[in-house]
Amino acid sequence: MVTLNDIATRLGISKSTVSKGLNNASDVSEELRRRILETAAEMGYVGVRPQKKFCIFVENMGYTDPNQFGYDIIAGFKEMAGSDGWMVDVVPLTKEYQSTITYQEAIAQGSWRGAFLLGFSLLDPWMEELRTTQVPTVLYDNYIKENPRIASVRCDNSGGLEAAVRHLYDLGHRRIALLCGPLDSYVVRERYNAYCAAMEKCGLPVDEDLIGLEYYVAESARKYLPRFIENGATAILCADDARAIAVYTECRDRCLRIPADVSIVGFDDLPMAAYMNPPLTTIRQDRTALGKCGYYTLSCLINDVAIDTIQLRAPLIVRGSTGPVPQQEGAEPSEEEASL
Amino acid sequence: MVTLNDIATRLGISKSTVSKGLNNASDVSEELRRRILETAAEMGYVGVRPQKKFCIFVENMGYTDPNQFGYDIIAGFKEMAGSDGWMVDVVPLTKEYQSTITYQEAIAQGSWRGAFLLGFSLLDPWMEELRTTQVPTVLYDNYIKENPRIASVRCDNSGGLEAAVRHLYDLGHRRIALLCGPLDSYVVRERYNAYCAAMEKCGLPVDEDLIGLEYYVAESARKYLPRFIENGATAILCADDARAIAVYTECRDRCLRIPADVSIVGFDDLPMAAYMNPPLTTIRQDRTALGKCGYYTLSCLINDVAIDTIQLRAPLIVRGSTGPVPQQEGAEPSEEEASL
Repeated sequence: MVTLNDIATRLGISKSTVSKGLNNASDVSEELRRRILETAAEMGYVGVRPQKKFCIFVENMGYTDPNQFGYDIIAGFKEMAGSDGWMVDVVPLTKEYQSTITYQEAIAQGSWRGAFLLGFSLLDPWMEELRTTQVPTVLYDNYIKENPRIASVRCDNSGGLEAAVRHLYDLGHRRIALLCGPLDSYVVRERYNAYCAAMEKCGLPVDEDLIGLEYYVAESARKYLPRFIENGATAILCADDARAIAVYTECRDRCLRIPADVSIVGFDDLPMAAYMNPPLTTIRQDRTALGKCGYYTLSCLINDVAIDTIQLRAPLIVRGSTGPVPQQEGAEPSEEEASL
Repeated sequence: MVTLNDIATRLGISKSTVSKGLNNASDVSEELRRRILETAAEMGYVGVRPQKKFCIFVENMGYTDPNQFGYDIIAGFKEMAGSDGWMVDVVPLTKEYQSTITYQEAIAQGSWRGAFLLGFSLLDPWMEELRTTQVPTVLYDNYIKENPRIASVRCDNSGGLEAAVRHLYDLGHRRIALLCGPLDSYVVRERYNAYCAAMEKCGLPVDEDLIGLEYYVAESARKYLPRFIENGATAILCADDARAIAVYTECRDRCLRIPADVSIVGFDDLPMAAYMNPPLTTIRQDRTALGKCGYYTLSCLINDVAIDTIQLRAPLIVRGSTGPVPQQEGAEPSEEEASL
């Protein structure tokens, strides 16, 4: 076990300076503090008296309001961790910060024993380091295959989207659009692939004109809703509820009735989904359970139980935003319908 | 909540007779007991004072000796359950018994709140009922997609087999055989498919002459080892350690040296694997962790947290039973080798 003395000897400074550097004391220069942190990380220093303290890093995700996706995840994690005597720090994160410090240095600086990472994208600077890190780390909806110190907690995206496409298909929809973020996030890629697979299972072609990939939520609805409608879409799958809300707004502005003119499906089942007008049909992610499983997984990892993945069910919650496909005026009944 | 009185009223008998029937009293006829059990099951009766009691059903799997696969799984489950105040009954199971009683009746009879099922095959009579059962149930290495009351606990078969095939490939092996049980078990199918996928990833053809599917362990080694060797196999992947042991025996009887003449890889990492001669290279399943995760998952299900799957890592443990591919006498070096 590496001690403060070992680090002090390596750097040729006093033990108390090492301690000050690790604890962010103001009388240690930024440059020296950095060298101390780097050396401590390199030597595998894990702290004098390891505290029972975990970190939740959050990026690209709101978590301060109950209607934001991260809120219940963090609450679930904290509830379980608290009852086991763990402290939990929640740290919002940016790409910029990740460029200034390595993951291991950040962990050492916070004296955390492990971390739960929410909302990371595949382009994040720390992603490469995570492939080999020794820090027990749980990812929400991300997956790193090679490293047994990393585990994933996720929902069954594929099962959820398959149920949603099947539900729309059974209502007569054949032109089903997908609105989601860009493919630089693992979870968006998964949902995108799950949508394509589900369409194929129903014998429906995947049509590029019915797919919209765009980071900004309101903009994505504004840009793609008209395109989808022009291209014959009668139903829109949104890869998150926030996007579904934006689509509702655009529909209202264009006098499109939900579900008489267009059916909408969300993903997440945020608390407000049931109170929207009409109430939103959506795929539920049990966020409190995700948080609890995140804690369970992290506590397994620090006890050398190499969980790879915990996957939760993602059931479709059918509400008022989906209905039968609208009858096109003057449209010939298809052969299939005519034979009924 | 259905009570004993409700069942008594429905059947037109006394409450005490219902109680006797549910508790297997000898003064209730077999026919009446059956009617009481069926009615209780149909009405969704879950016991008077629900006890904290789970059941582990075991089939096709030894569990009484530390070198049998089920031993540590059950120990892990019991350890976690016990510390939460749960009793655990372990019940060996046969197909014949499953034909005499439904799953729900068996659960009601034992007053269990849920069950962990080990070693089930796809042909088991209860498998169909599991698709719709309301009994919280965790399956080891089996998967039922539709039912949110069912969850799975498993190892990463695919990752483990990929690492094994890659390891043999890196040692120069190109003719890699697979010895496993018949494809009527979910886990065997998974390993079979994982083997095929891993071979393809390495650019190796999947050759039917190098695949042996056979239920009986000793017989499978006796039958297939000579065929594999005749067909040029230089390495054999066994889908469980028990089969690897049988292959060791056959190799000794035929004066084949391990690994000089043939490399052997197992699956499970049973305690004895490290003590075999030579020590067995194998894919580890952390059975204690599987049992602990089984308990965790079951306790989630009874609290309506719909875990779908917990997957553990399955790392390759390299020991002495694998080595470089033997040089064939008089063989021309391949183009690849010649160019080195």
